[in-house]
Amino acid sequence: MTAGEGPRGLSVKDAPSPTCGPDEIRVAVKASALNRADLLQTMGLYPAPKGVPADIPGLEYAGEVAEVGARVTRWKKGDRVMGLVAGGAWAEELVTHEREAIAMPAACSFEHAAAIPEAFMTAWDALALQGGMTAGTQVLIHAVASGVGTAALQLCALHGARAIGTGRNASKLERIKNMGLQDTVLVNDGTFANRVKALTNERGVDLVLDLVGGDWLPETIDAMAPQSTLMLVGLVGGATAEVPLRTVLGKRIRVIGTTLRARNLEEKIAVARRFEHQLVPHFAAGRLEPVVENTVPFTETPKALERLAANDTFGKTVLTW
Amino acid sequence: MTAGEGPRGLSVKDAPSPTCGPDEIRVAVKASALNRADLLQTMGLYPAPKGVPADIPGLEYAGEVAEVGARVTRWKKGDRVMGLVAGGAWAEELVTHEREAIAMPAACSFEHAAAIPEAFMTAWDALALQGGMTAGTQVLIHAVASGVGTAALQLCALHGARAIGTGRNASKLERIKNMGLQDTVLVNDGTFANRVKALTNERGVDLVLDLVGGDWLPETIDAMAPQSTLMLVGLVGGATAEVPLRTVLGKRIRVIGTTLRARNLEEKIAVARRFEHQLVPHFAAGRLEPVVENTVPFTETPKALERLAANDTFGKTVLTW
Repeated sequence: MTAGEGPRGLSVKDAPSPTCGPDEIRVAVKASALNRADLLQTMGLYPAPKGVPADIPGLEYAGEVAEVGARVTRWKKGDRVMGLVAGGAWAEELVTHEREAIAMPAACSFEHAAAIPEAFMTAWDALALQGGMTAGTQVLIHAVASGVGTAALQLCALHGARAIGTGRNASKLERIKNMGLQDTVLVNDGTFANRVKALTNERGVDLVLDLVGGDWLPETIDAMAPQSTLMLVGLVGGATAEVPLRTVLGKRIRVIGTTLRARNLEEKIAVARRFEHQLVPHFAAGRLEPVVENTVPFTETPKALERLAANDTFGKTVLTW
Repeated sequence: MTAGEGPRGLSVKDAPSPTCGPDEIRVAVKASALNRADLLQTMGLYPAPKGVPADIPGLEYAGEVAEVGARVTRWKKGDRVMGLVAGGAWAEELVTHEREAIAMPAACSFEHAAAIPEAFMTAWDALALQGGMTAGTQVLIHAVASGVGTAALQLCALHGARAIGTGRNASKLERIKNMGLQDTVLVNDGTFANRVKALTNERGVDLVLDLVGGDWLPETIDAMAPQSTLMLVGLVGGATAEVPLRTVLGKRIRVIGTTLRARNLEEKIAVARRFEHQLVPHFAAGRLEPVVENTVPFTETPKALERLAANDTFGKTVLTW
């Protein structure tokens, strides 16, 4: 990758095989997926953290264990694993700490498994672990047709929470309705607070999964109930915002910024282990399912990323090796 | 009070005695104190909540129980009490739910007791109950020379936390240093983040008690450590702010708006009861002490409020009847 050139700066290159430490496993990557962070990274806006391949994007993977380090106890060669990495997943091989890797759901294809980690762990960590979502919580999901958004609406259903989804594309919201979510709000002039309040008996929502930030923030805060929580996960709408502090104070609103990529190893392991324990069984049982719109060979990554940049995608785009 | 006229709209008037319900006590007010919210209320910017006298400001009091309702169990006539009300404390009498009233610290004067509730309950609720302050927490206190600020720095000491205080007035910060707080930052050009970071080994603070908001917010966020918390309590610096969302997200910062006045009865009772149990003994023991700069007769309220508006006060200004 040549940072700053965008998707066109990507090219397929030979790279040395990464070294597998004593607590690590080497994974033969079978599939990966696209994330907006990858796009930002190709544009030079979101460099890889220290210790991560700077020139190989890719934040999630599914594959087979190809080698285990000397102290590894959880895995053996051939096990099917998926997970998050801070970079380097768009490659034939990656290494990861054995406790960060997650057992793939039974009977799940690599293509589907690769679409699970970033979308579902991001949405679940934000809504359930940090946001306190529980049965009856009214949840506003911005950009509901995205990978994280489609994961979030399934997680709302699983938890007995009520979801309201926003988007700027009418046909994508139709597809969301066909997935069973009735309460969608088409945002075409930047306003949505009054419609969200009308859907919540004028009280506003208890919890927001915000992938947009920026210009939408004043409307988002207007659409929130007293003592509600805004989980700030993405900034598609802009990296700064004019925030109505008086409303934040008067309604006693919590705004919580979150990201998985910047976390320390111990925090990443904690989320991964809990995800395997609490959520993976729901995939195996069919109650959760990644929404994969496109599966493309890795050689088509630049074109696929440009579709993401143009907001032409629905759910996840998967890359295969 | 004539709302919108500012402090000059205040005048002394006869008012009917408030009705004491079965769970309430009537208090003969001996002293009250000034708060910035009173000032805003006289300016028409912060109207009283429903059910509260609209034309009598005053958010805290100390006095004697003059009457008890039929179901009251905690108090008898003559008991010395203090507490918060949502308005109406600048009067000879007020009524309050018996469980919202707090026993005055032993041997405390009415003048000192009246300066305790708003400053110490606001700071304690924000820092300890919501902000999670504990021994070793590094706390940034904006407007440290204010009533809430001087309470906050004592609470930091009590909890074994480390305080850094900001202010725009060098002589007030000198007085703060004389109270034992070495780490003060004089803000004269709007910047302070680099100095706060220098005081925290470049890591930033874990917790902010923000009474300023507005223009200071970008610097405040710059001065914060990863996974830190900003308690937004006041807006002296402005009611909106341009917020650097990318930093909020990248550092996983929590911004929590809070106010005591807008809470429901059950929440106010919960804080009052816990405050009486956990903090009042520390006043009796001399470990906490309200900073009272001025004690003035209630007839001088307009002039005293104008000093508050001009930022000419240090600690609390108390009114006596």
